[in-house]
Amino acid sequence: MISVQEALTLVESSASVSSPENTNLENSLGKVLREKIHSDRDYPPFHRATMDGFALKSEGFSEDRIYSYTRELHAGESFRLESGEETIRIMTGAPVPEGFDLVIKIEDSEDLGISNGKKQVRFKTEKSSSFSNIAIQGEDLKINQEILNEGTLINASVLSLLSSLGKYSIQTSKLPRVRVISTGNEIVGPGEIPKPWQIRDSNSYSIRSLLQKYGISPLSVTRAGDDPILLEKAVKEGLDSDLLILSGGVSMGNLDLVPKILETSGVKEVFHKVRIKPGKPIWFGKKNKQAVFGLPGNPFSVQVCFRIFVEAYIRKFLGLSSEKPICLPFAGERKKKNKLTEFFPVSYETKVQTFLSEKKFNGSGDIRAGIFSDGLGVQFSETENLEEGDLLEFYPWS
Amino acid sequence: MISVQEALTLVESSASVSSPENTNLENSLGKVLREKIHSDRDYPPFHRATMDGFALKSEGFSEDRIYSYTRELHAGESFRLESGEETIRIMTGAPVPEGFDLVIKIEDSEDLGISNGKKQVRFKTEKSSSFSNIAIQGEDLKINQEILNEGTLINASVLSLLSSLGKYSIQTSKLPRVRVISTGNEIVGPGEIPKPWQIRDSNSYSIRSLLQKYGISPLSVTRAGDDPILLEKAVKEGLDSDLLILSGGVSMGNLDLVPKILETSGVKEVFHKVRIKPGKPIWFGKKNKQAVFGLPGNPFSVQVCFRIFVEAYIRKFLGLSSEKPICLPFAGERKKKNKLTEFFPVSYETKVQTFLSEKKFNGSGDIRAGIFSDGLGVQFSETENLEEGDLLEFYPWS
Repeated sequence: MISVQEALTLVESSASVSSPENTNLENSLGKVLREKIHSDRDYPPFHRATMDGFALKSEGFSEDRIYSYTRELHAGESFRLESGEETIRIMTGAPVPEGFDLVIKIEDSEDLGISNGKKQVRFKTEKSSSFSNIAIQGEDLKINQEILNEGTLINASVLSLLSSLGKYSIQTSKLPRVRVISTGNEIVGPGEIPKPWQIRDSNSYSIRSLLQKYGISPLSVTRAGDDPILLEKAVKEGLDSDLLILSGGVSMGNLDLVPKILETSGVKEVFHKVRIKPGKPIWFGKKNKQAVFGLPGNPFSVQVCFRIFVEAYIRKFLGLSSEKPICLPFAGERKKKNKLTEFFPVSYETKVQTFLSEKKFNGSGDIRAGIFSDGLGVQFSETENLEEGDLLEFYPWS
Repeated sequence: MISVQEALTLVESSASVSSPENTNLENSLGKVLREKIHSDRDYPPFHRATMDGFALKSEGFSEDRIYSYTRELHAGESFRLESGEETIRIMTGAPVPEGFDLVIKIEDSEDLGISNGKKQVRFKTEKSSSFSNIAIQGEDLKINQEILNEGTLINASVLSLLSSLGKYSIQTSKLPRVRVISTGNEIVGPGEIPKPWQIRDSNSYSIRSLLQKYGISPLSVTRAGDDPILLEKAVKEGLDSDLLILSGGVSMGNLDLVPKILETSGVKEVFHKVRIKPGKPIWFGKKNKQAVFGLPGNPFSVQVCFRIFVEAYIRKFLGLSSEKPICLPFAGERKKKNKLTEFFPVSYETKVQTFLSEKKFNGSGDIRAGIFSDGLGVQFSETENLEEGDLLEFYPWS
């Protein structure tokens, strides 16, 4: 039986990055960028007033001097200075006209009324040096400067940036085509009323929900029971995808039904069984470029194995870097006797600092496992006791 | 000018919880539950074998005894014991037949071959007491037990639970109907090439993306420039929504264009200007049950004001509880001279423990502001210096 780390390494090295495709910016939220992004011009693209006030020349500025003006300049407008124009009223976001290099904010100005048809103003300011209250052209970014690299996840900030740059069509990673099969004769679907010794299918629902984190909608979700013929048919149909995820049928009690059918269908085992709890019987294999996960059937095992192994595969497939876990102090105590690495649900608990506290439940068959938790904490194989304040590796759900 | 906390209190007290609606479970991910959920039966619904092995009676068990058996029971099957049946082969997930109360795992059994047409087996085990290796009916949940309350956010774990319970149709909060207007003559849309003193619209894109966190697609996204007539028309049309979000036009340089038009359109100011950076000129008002935000036009101001104020409104509207910030130690130093509460982008940095480090950028006009950050850190109005290890309130983006 291999360790969690060994299994993760095998999963990640089995994935190859998907091909890029063109995506409209509007549909790119949550996708992964597959091109370098450069600035199309300087940013700011012009000397921009950062305050409402007056634009003038810093050279020869004096607090005693009275300035006259006639014009005002708003954001989105531009004009050339006229000869003899001493100052102009300027608004935040407007371009400072060539010839001026200083903006004095409105609060530092004194209105002196009108003389000879021109408005009169005087300034009392601590900021009269060149480029005060001006964002200089190119001070944020120079034209052609590299801003984003391949492998960047497109969140709201990145999408905002891309729209500023006019990148309305971008290269992003193709999403994996995923098929889902749940096995088990004890599982009944939404149309059926379970007999006392049957349970309702929940794994199809949770796998579908977990895929949504990456914007993936599975091509199909099938219930195949434990009938080898039906299951073999479903598997063969499922092998036209990039990623096939099965739940159930991988433990001894199922007579390894799923691994056997996968191998007769030409899927080669990469590993079967990992020193993890829950999820020990997890199976992973490949057929050419296709990956196949056989997840254990307990609802919480599915959630843990998906979060740790399937997500690692999807991240690599999309061209994202490996996940770096967060480390936060643990509130409470936790003992374990086995030599497995245990993943357990935790939630944020903030008194002064934020700790992680365990969300207890009644074993991995408990249908409530995972609810009200913010993610998974890890107790490593060799750690017998976790104590108050010990640092915990933490994998948030979102 | 009011404080961030005062503004938040006003925003939250302005929101009333939306009416509930029926949603198919498949479409409920990310929505907010609006009914109490009870268990429909005991969980487990039957005494369930938690190991592969043999089911038998604990009474009279002896390691010396040889047991004979003929039948095996899989998950999803059930049978009554026949008279004289001493043990059966049982698989994980199968119901333990009435009359038996012990499961001994396969590893603790010794196969003794066949005698008189019956298979023979002997056990050597430390677990022979009543209900060993059995999940007892109802030990996780009793029938009619309350499991979830109104106001629960439906994530993958909750959705999995609801499917286990057969709740395929549930009451969830109606999403707010949102309209978005961006103002500013300097802003050009995707079809146009910006002149040197113009910039492209990014706020429409970021507001649309930020709304996606709650599964909200705006009814409309409009660019209205600074033309009072166009803007008044857009505002009047926008007032048939639950929530109208404008960007730009709220600071002095815009001559308070947006506040004036909102007030003539019958929207009553709740507040204008908050001691926050960025986002100081933020405007918030109400017309009957409709809420209107006027966000400052800088890209990063939009992101901050949305995260702090608009999300607080949406949470209340959906029936979620107020957000509890996370508190993590700060890596680095940060000084400020003003009396504003500053929000700045931070990202996780894990050496041993996870700290938050500041993602520097060049002022709130910098189009890169926010990228590569995991959320916002807070430096409160009265805190002049943040030092290494100081606890920081943290608002993650997701």
